[in-house]
Amino acid sequence: MDFNALFNPTSIAVVGASRDPNKIGSAILKNLRITYRGKIFPINPFTEELQGVKTYKNLGMVKEPIDVAVIAVPANGVLGVLKQAEKKGVKFAVIISAGFKEVGPEGAKREEEIKRFLVGKKMRVIGPNCLGIMNMDPPYNATFIDPIVKPLEGNAAIISQSGAIMSAMIDAAIDKRIGFSKMISVGNAVDVDEAELVHALTDDPNTNAIFLYLEGLINGREFLRAAAKASETKPLLILKGGISTDGSRAVISHTGSLSGDNTVYEAAFKRVGAIKVKDMETALLLLRDAPKIRIKSNEIVILTNGGGNGILATDSLSETGLTLAKYNNNTIKELERVLPRGTEIGNPLDIRGDASQARYRDSLKSVARMNKPVIVLFSPQEVAMPIETAKEIINVSAEFSDVTILAAFMGGTRVEKSRLLLLENMVPVYSFPDEPVKVVDALYKYGLYRPPSFSTYEKTKISITKLSPKTNLFGLKAATFLKGLGIDITKGVYIKGQKDAKAAIKEIGFPCVLKIYSGEAPHKNRIGGVVTNIINETELNKAFGTIAEAAKINKVPLQGYELYKHIENSTGIEIILGGHKDKQFGTVVGIGVGGVNVEAINQMFHMIAPITDEDVNAFKESGIAKIVAASGSPQAVNTLIDSAIRLAKIMDKYERITDIDINPVVIKDNTTSALDLKIFVRA
Amino acid sequence: MDFNALFNPTSIAVVGASRDPNKIGSAILKNLRITYRGKIFPINPFTEELQGVKTYKNLGMVKEPIDVAVIAVPANGVLGVLKQAEKKGVKFAVIISAGFKEVGPEGAKREEEIKRFLVGKKMRVIGPNCLGIMNMDPPYNATFIDPIVKPLEGNAAIISQSGAIMSAMIDAAIDKRIGFSKMISVGNAVDVDEAELVHALTDDPNTNAIFLYLEGLINGREFLRAAAKASETKPLLILKGGISTDGSRAVISHTGSLSGDNTVYEAAFKRVGAIKVKDMETALLLLRDAPKIRIKSNEIVILTNGGGNGILATDSLSETGLTLAKYNNNTIKELERVLPRGTEIGNPLDIRGDASQARYRDSLKSVARMNKPVIVLFSPQEVAMPIETAKEIINVSAEFSDVTILAAFMGGTRVEKSRLLLLENMVPVYSFPDEPVKVVDALYKYGLYRPPSFSTYEKTKISITKLSPKTNLFGLKAATFLKGLGIDITKGVYIKGQKDAKAAIKEIGFPCVLKIYSGEAPHKNRIGGVVTNIINETELNKAFGTIAEAAKINKVPLQGYELYKHIENSTGIEIILGGHKDKQFGTVVGIGVGGVNVEAINQMFHMIAPITDEDVNAFKESGIAKIVAASGSPQAVNTLIDSAIRLAKIMDKYERITDIDINPVVIKDNTTSALDLKIFVRA
Repeated sequence: MDFNALFNPTSIAVVGASRDPNKIGSAILKNLRITYRGKIFPINPFTEELQGVKTYKNLGMVKEPIDVAVIAVPANGVLGVLKQAEKKGVKFAVIISAGFKEVGPEGAKREEEIKRFLVGKKMRVIGPNCLGIMNMDPPYNATFIDPIVKPLEGNAAIISQSGAIMSAMIDAAIDKRIGFSKMISVGNAVDVDEAELVHALTDDPNTNAIFLYLEGLINGREFLRAAAKASETKPLLILKGGISTDGSRAVISHTGSLSGDNTVYEAAFKRVGAIKVKDMETALLLLRDAPKIRIKSNEIVILTNGGGNGILATDSLSETGLTLAKYNNNTIKELERVLPRGTEIGNPLDIRGDASQARYRDSLKSVARMNKPVIVLFSPQEVAMPIETAKEIINVSAEFSDVTILAAFMGGTRVEKSRLLLLENMVPVYSFPDEPVKVVDALYKYGLYRPPSFSTYEKTKISITKLSPKTNLFGLKAATFLKGLGIDITKGVYIKGQKDAKAAIKEIGFPCVLKIYSGEAPHKNRIGGVVTNIINETELNKAFGTIAEAAKINKVPLQGYELYKHIENSTGIEIILGGHKDKQFGTVVGIGVGGVNVEAINQMFHMIAPITDEDVNAFKESGIAKIVAASGSPQAVNTLIDSAIRLAKIMDKYERITDIDINPVVIKDNTTSALDLKIFVRA
Repeated sequence: MDFNALFNPTSIAVVGASRDPNKIGSAILKNLRITYRGKIFPINPFTEELQGVKTYKNLGMVKEPIDVAVIAVPANGVLGVLKQAEKKGVKFAVIISAGFKEVGPEGAKREEEIKRFLVGKKMRVIGPNCLGIMNMDPPYNATFIDPIVKPLEGNAAIISQSGAIMSAMIDAAIDKRIGFSKMISVGNAVDVDEAELVHALTDDPNTNAIFLYLEGLINGREFLRAAAKASETKPLLILKGGISTDGSRAVISHTGSLSGDNTVYEAAFKRVGAIKVKDMETALLLLRDAPKIRIKSNEIVILTNGGGNGILATDSLSETGLTLAKYNNNTIKELERVLPRGTEIGNPLDIRGDASQARYRDSLKSVARMNKPVIVLFSPQEVAMPIETAKEIINVSAEFSDVTILAAFMGGTRVEKSRLLLLENMVPVYSFPDEPVKVVDALYKYGLYRPPSFSTYEKTKISITKLSPKTNLFGLKAATFLKGLGIDITKGVYIKGQKDAKAAIKEIGFPCVLKIYSGEAPHKNRIGGVVTNIINETELNKAFGTIAEAAKINKVPLQGYELYKHIENSTGIEIILGGHKDKQFGTVVGIGVGGVNVEAINQMFHMIAPITDEDVNAFKESGIAKIVAASGSPQAVNTLIDSAIRLAKIMDKYERITDIDINPVVIKDNTTSALDLKIFVRA
């Protein structure tokens, strides 16, 4: 997809340009007049000119070609304008107008109509319900942001699902000296979506880092492809809004609680090398620095003139993947030479409250020679002058241009000018000791990103011979379907009634478990349809009665029984294995801890299909794998991940299967026994 | 202790006042001249006047009484000055000079000398190695902070163990309109410590909130008393620097890793109602607002003109103890009346991007009538003007003076002036949607604080009849000592050698466990001194040989054997129960999860003696208690907490016991069996 006409249009029309300065169309026209060097065609049926620019009655009246039409008419007029635009040969329409999906059923209907109209058309659409689009080079501002907000030119791009967040960030960015390349508000994304825009910005030479504010995705798989591609060359920062508050974390399937679940998003972001940012503030820091900095080492030097600040930076570092660098002998010798006798040569390197700018310079040079990232902390104290110290840091940064040097100048009035000076001279500077640590950590992790490999997944073969199931399958039927899963499924037989029990028990043996068979009773336990640990015939006979009674009370048809070998779960570890077709990412499988530990071990390991080798390794290092191994079943770890891969492949191949629940899987002495299985299919 | 002479001195001497403007003494004199209305006596043997003030050769030469002597002479001269000051009757000495404990052994020796000199003296000392002290009313600045930094007067107090952090925070506070009452840098705290200062500030009518930067404590118990007292009337905010990076969390005792361990600090802060702040930035926000705001409800209303911002605030809220308020019918009716038709009446209440200041005013009034905290989010968008909206919020805040209204105005240039306007009119305002949520959460939690009660602890009686042990006790000897602990200790007998085995096995029975008895082998398992699951006589005979061999190889004296009943731990839950005499807080006991789950369940429940009723209830709600209960042993939860109380009482009563390790305690079917016990005593 070629976005050149959108990013570098030769002409722009503003449909809904107005004389009323409070109208959005007026603000957009004003912003374009100030910023855009190409041709502007304001469209307004009732005027001859607006803001000194000749107007046209409608798009058709414009003789010249139009690359972009910005539409700011009332919602019910949008479709008509789109039709005109398409006829005119407009390449991109940007629908600013609100009043669609976001306002309820009536708006959703209008949005559907637009979607339908666009099928098969060449013209592409951004929005509706968006703030617009801004490019810094070549410059044009087709948003209704107040013209007093003048973003700086730079290499950070924004894609935002919220206009309010985009406008707030652009405004906040100015003081922080954050420069932008392109800013796009996607609104309801009726046509062009985040994935396409990430692709476009990946190809954009003016963009060195992409920020995305995301609430949900329509096509998660396509987005992941775009994100992975982007991460190969530039950092992609994602602020995810809308954390699921559903606490039922262990329920991976059926309930659908997983759709859009935050942990799945996290798994997805990690897989594609995206940097998940926690809040707008961190987003702004990273937006500023990510286009400029690459971190190649996780061994950091912290230089400080105050012990407390060094401690706070170190505390923050202890929550990251970073460590404190060790000095080599040369560095130690040099530091001993330049620092006052008796100074402890540690890391953090406390050069003391009486450190002059010269001491900052000399010690910074000494540690910079190690070629590791250096964080320089400055607290306004007696001798060191903020401006002079800043100048020395700027000089050393220039001299050691390969070394990443970041500064934190703590305080307000006393250090404000020096912070500005550092920024203007391309030295990243912060106000608190934990901030540079967070930035270095995020960018170091980004630097570790490699495109995922899928060798284990591809090597694992499953046989797909059966037909896709048409109804939900429980118990034995599910077990039969999932035979090739690689875990032991507890031996069981179907029996019609009590009279078949004798033959069956010969095969299964005591102790055994008797379960109701009923297509309408997925939760057999809850209705009293399961009797466990049956040790002799008398008990077995009693169990038939118990279950028949339960079926009656709960009004479920008694279609027979299933007889299983009894597995003592209290002596093993209980695991939950599940798969779900996520609306946004497709097949997602999970391995979690069940049984009594579920209360304390808040862990479910999610993997999106196709499962990567990195997922496989990460699972083997996970807390869940450690519990399984420590319980005396190290080989079961491999069985579990292999089964998860098979489960993912089955979910992917059988289109109608929406969920598979294998719960519990009892693990003991390296055997894995699935005690209950459920397969749910789309009706 | 009366701090009036320190906070409100009638005269101050500056020892080490200098003509050299780069010297600290000169800066302090200058600050005092600018701020202080009482008498100043600069002390300098070589001058007649400094900065226009008459100087004195030494403290003795001053005829009038001196309340405070600020000392800024080289470290080796400090003791001499202190002696003069004491003779002169100085009430408080503030030692600014560095060169003590913080620079190594030589400095530590100097500090010890000062400590020794102060014994029995009436004069009290702040410092050494500190930034000084500042009071806003009556004003005086006896620090060497640059005079261009002029803090605002207000009701927040600072106590800091780091001068660098105090100076940075004071500087940063000015822009943020944070007003102070008193600021005290405690330095090495050779005499006056944090506990005394917290007491003093609790009594200070000008102080409404206390901030403390803390690295470590000398007398933790006394500090906790002071902190608990403070929390009864004003919030105490603590930023703890120096998080232990030791990962061996499960080792509660013996290794000493617990001393100053962060989790114990957290338990301590929680117990006394202190607000733990994560970083300087949050500290500044809370310093600004904690003196003014009290939060009485955890049901919050979020009002926003941008969906995205509302989502981010809600995400942040989901990590706290706050919830979104539900509207009553009147509120819904009113909102429907004042908001455009079709607006969804939700919480967050999205009044949309086209919200005018009037819409902000009307909807804010409607929700304010519910008398719950309201967070108003503003993102610069098309219609609402920042200043006008700010004015409406100020008006509504004044009208509903009982309701806490907080605002977040997102952005930079466009909203800067409105943020300032709100602040000046006492409306707390922030720059990001998550910030007000954090502030409300912290202050709501503080509002829940009640002084702890100890009824369960007091009711639990233990008999203290034995003598304090003089040597470490392991195994059976430890078990005998700890008989009154309330948990079952696995039955065992001491036997000299193989010949006594027959009699012993009659009492214990098979399966049994044979352990080495050796005072010098606390870690019997590691040296191969334990054989478990012995099922018959042949195996038992073999076990004697195995252990004798292990003793020989490991060169530990074989002083006999212990024979126990074998308890199958793989069928139960393993718990660790431990006690430790913490350097800072005295007896601390902990209950943790052991066995295979230790890898995944990163939980150790710490309690400081005396154990509070709140601790008891919190343990019963903890993940550990839930695992124990879910494993089929709900009554064991009570046994565990009861044993922990007894353990704490034993540790407290027997002065020489430093650590007790009961690991593992196997829990099954509501029985608790301690399999191994160790008692360590001070040599």
